[in-house]
Amino acid sequence: MEQTISRHELAKMIDHSILRPVLTRQDTIAGLEIALKYDVAAATVKPCYVPLAAQMLQGSDVRVNPVIDFPFGYGTTACKASQTREAIEHGAQEIDMVLNVGALLGGEYGYVRDDIAAVVAAAGGAVVKVILEVAYLNDDQIVTACQLCEEAGAHFVKTSTGFAPTGYTIESLKLMRATVSTRVQVKAAHGVRSLEDALAVRAVGVTRFGATQTEKIFAEWEAAFGGK
Amino acid sequence: MEQTISRHELAKMIDHSILRPVLTRQDTIAGLEIALKYDVAAATVKPCYVPLAAQMLQGSDVRVNPVIDFPFGYGTTACKASQTREAIEHGAQEIDMVLNVGALLGGEYGYVRDDIAAVVAAAGGAVVKVILEVAYLNDDQIVTACQLCEEAGAHFVKTSTGFAPTGYTIESLKLMRATVSTRVQVKAAHGVRSLEDALAVRAVGVTRFGATQTEKIFAEWEAAFGGK
Repeated sequence: MEQTISRHELAKMIDHSILRPVLTRQDTIAGLEIALKYDVAAATVKPCYVPLAAQMLQGSDVRVNPVIDFPFGYGTTACKASQTREAIEHGAQEIDMVLNVGALLGGEYGYVRDDIAAVVAAAGGAVVKVILEVAYLNDDQIVTACQLCEEAGAHFVKTSTGFAPTGYTIESLKLMRATVSTRVQVKAAHGVRSLEDALAVRAVGVTRFGATQTEKIFAEWEAAFGGK
Repeated sequence: MEQTISRHELAKMIDHSILRPVLTRQDTIAGLEIALKYDVAAATVKPCYVPLAAQMLQGSDVRVNPVIDFPFGYGTTACKASQTREAIEHGAQEIDMVLNVGALLGGEYGYVRDDIAAVVAAAGGAVVKVILEVAYLNDDQIVTACQLCEEAGAHFVKTSTGFAPTGYTIESLKLMRATVSTRVQVKAAHGVRSLEDALAVRAVGVTRFGATQTEKIFAEWEAAFGGK
């Protein structure tokens, strides 16, 4: 490995994802235990399990991170805002929301910006990451989406839900990083499955990534850096 | 064709689906024009386009049919209910909601029933169709899901969102029809792409199906029955 990374630094890049529709409450508990064991940045959970996550993660340094209007993002703005408020009331500390990609593709830019801004306002200062779903966007659309996210006050731009045909590319991450100011961070999702992937996205300025393969990634870290 | 079906009877089986994430406002308008042209039962739309659909379909016999908590169904119950109320206020006449499949698989039956019942209550008498997502269910789970839907007061059980790996099978439709009472109807989704498919699902008791290939299906009807 050309880069090195501490175990803690790696952990705090990871949003451990517990989002597949078939996952049960028990599966969510198992996922939260993994998030706690590796002391990751956040556990990304179904909205219906926010109270469970808040209870299990209480007192830890792992944040409760529900998805909002996931994975399509075409609910109403009022609905996205009320979901966000409810999640925050129940213990959410970060929010991963989905941009209304159809509205973006149709040129409804004011709508898209206001939709994000409403969630940012409802989150009351909590970190808001906005999923662009880059699988459906060309470079110009990625740039526009990033600009709208920043104008709306979002804290992160995120590539993907994990449920579109494809996820991030290194080129899409570079473009997102180059578009937003230093106030806005970039989260990679749908494709970080190894320590090598994690280091590759970090090398282009990514500070957070979504992962389901958290245990595998830490095993690889142990093999590469654990003895040092 | 062994069965015959009138043009009107076919039309009133169809919920014309306008749900892919990339579809824009203009695409939705085009889809609503198709729904009006063929006088289908309902146009299934993104929640953000309910006001548009209500405006375009006003005075027609085509119903405004948004999806709620689509396609994963793991939002909170409060959120599903408030989305439903908002949609009804904005002109929705039918609701296609998604059952919380993870909760079902985890045995949280009371939760699943109450989740559906809250949407039925919020819909205030409007038809509620509950999507089971049969791709993730075995026969016993399909039976349980159907029973919970009926207990919760739903009007339809529906097979699929169209966004899982697979859709209905004829066997799953037969099982759903055999499980619910005559008060509850069955909607097939994810797989009706031809007149032949439509007649096949009708033969096992289906009264409504979701379709994106509405124009193709009517062209096939014209070829088969139009001259009679």
